[in-house]
Amino acid sequence: MIEAEIYITLKKTVADPQGLTVKHALESLGYKEAEQVRMGKLITIRLNLKNKEEAEGKIDEMCRKLLANPIIEDYSFNIRCLPTDLQ
Amino acid sequence: MIEAEIYITLKKTVADPQGLTVKHALESLGYKEAEQVRMGKLITIRLNLKNKEEAEGKIDEMCRKLLANPIIEDYSFNIRCLPTDLQ
Repeated sequence: MIEAEIYITLKKTVADPQGLTVKHALESLGYKEAEQVRMGKLITIRLNLKNKEEAEGKIDEMCRKLLANPIIEDYSFNIRCLPTDLQ
Repeated sequence: MIEAEIYITLKKTVADPQGLTVKHALESLGYKEAEQVRMGKLITIRLNLKNKEEAEGKIDEMCRKLLANPIIEDYSFNIRCLPTDLQ
């Protein structure tokens, strides 16, 4: 079993109203040191595969085809093999 | 300037209908090897602070008070100092 953690973030040039709202909320709680807040997605996928390279290719495809919107989002991911007792 | 990446995930025992929907979408695209999909949040915060320990304390507080719901979510974070030219 392979587990992938996928990080999807808005491109730097894309406005992030949700992040701005969180920044204002932090400020109203007294956290004036928050300069910038950007919201992204963290997707954890378990794959029934053994080969890390194959998993890497599949995850990259999934990101391009479904999980990320390449026009406004960037993505990156980490892949690791799960020990048998966690499966 | 310090940048924190905060990872917010649903606790293992909490149902994740959004993740299930993504899993079904992946299956309908032919990715039968996707065993489990869990959706989480990735929040990137830039703090106008210099001290890493102070930033760690602040981020932990922000997670507990606002960013995560401790009843159904877990959180973790990474903190790094940004080089001056990225500020």
